[in-house]
Amino acid sequence: MVDILHRVGVKTESPEKVYDALTTVEGLAGWWTDDTSGSAEKDGVLEFRFPLGGFDMEVVEQRPSEHVAWTVVGGPDEWVGTTIDWQLRQDGDYTIVLFKHEGWKEPVEFMHHCSTKWATYLMSLKSLVETGVGAPAPRDVHVGFPD
Amino acid sequence: MVDILHRVGVKTESPEKVYDALTTVEGLAGWWTDDTSGSAEKDGVLEFRFPLGGFDMEVVEQRPSEHVAWTVVGGPDEWVGTTIDWQLRQDGDYTIVLFKHEGWKEPVEFMHHCSTKWATYLMSLKSLVETGVGAPAPRDVHVGFPD
Repeated sequence: MVDILHRVGVKTESPEKVYDALTTVEGLAGWWTDDTSGSAEKDGVLEFRFPLGGFDMEVVEQRPSEHVAWTVVGGPDEWVGTTIDWQLRQDGDYTIVLFKHEGWKEPVEFMHHCSTKWATYLMSLKSLVETGVGAPAPRDVHVGFPD
Repeated sequence: MVDILHRVGVKTESPEKVYDALTTVEGLAGWWTDDTSGSAEKDGVLEFRFPLGGFDMEVVEQRPSEHVAWTVVGGPDEWVGTTIDWQLRQDGDYTIVLFKHEGWKEPVEFMHHCSTKWATYLMSLKSLVETGVGAPAPRDVHVGFPD
């Protein structure tokens, strides 16, 4: 098992705005993909759609301003059954976001791509909270080919 | 052992420019840090310095347009002894860069940070080759706090 790990610091007074951006359809649409729908409640399923495909995520954990976790229940074979884990904590003027995409079976080339792409989406989340403007698909940062 | 993995596609006719950006002091200074010195030859040691610290890398492998590998011989404790591995291949109009920073002992928070930061530096490498302008330190993209 291999994991994708990331960390960003978002300049904001408390973790609330970051938490909202991870736990509401409107917030998620502001940094990951315009085409976000479904239920953002615990045990709900979120549906994220992109020009080249999509992911369905079951919300398995939500602890306000601290922790969010999703299990992938639909999408590419490599993703199904993996977990996306978000831990938040405040450190001075920054909300620290620790991100893990856990449970990849093999370090395939697609995993390398997803790692880089997640970093750009985390920067989009940071930008959304800090400036009000993110870079969700289809206005996302392109890291390679195809993406 | 846990690894940082990334992949970018650089729009360029052949891998030569990417290879040059990984194997010359001038090229490395164009995307990673202005303050790059040392020997970029095989068995040489490259010295990369940043406002908050630096890394010394022994060049352990160079296969033109295909493969570059460094072993970290100086820098933060978590980095010393780890390996930075670059694989290049051409796919149509893109040079595909597969990046691995291998051999971390533990998935510490600093590793999460370095993973995100590497992604932004790989985007800087892509930008350098595609546009002639990278974002090396101290003009690097800030992903968090402190960095």
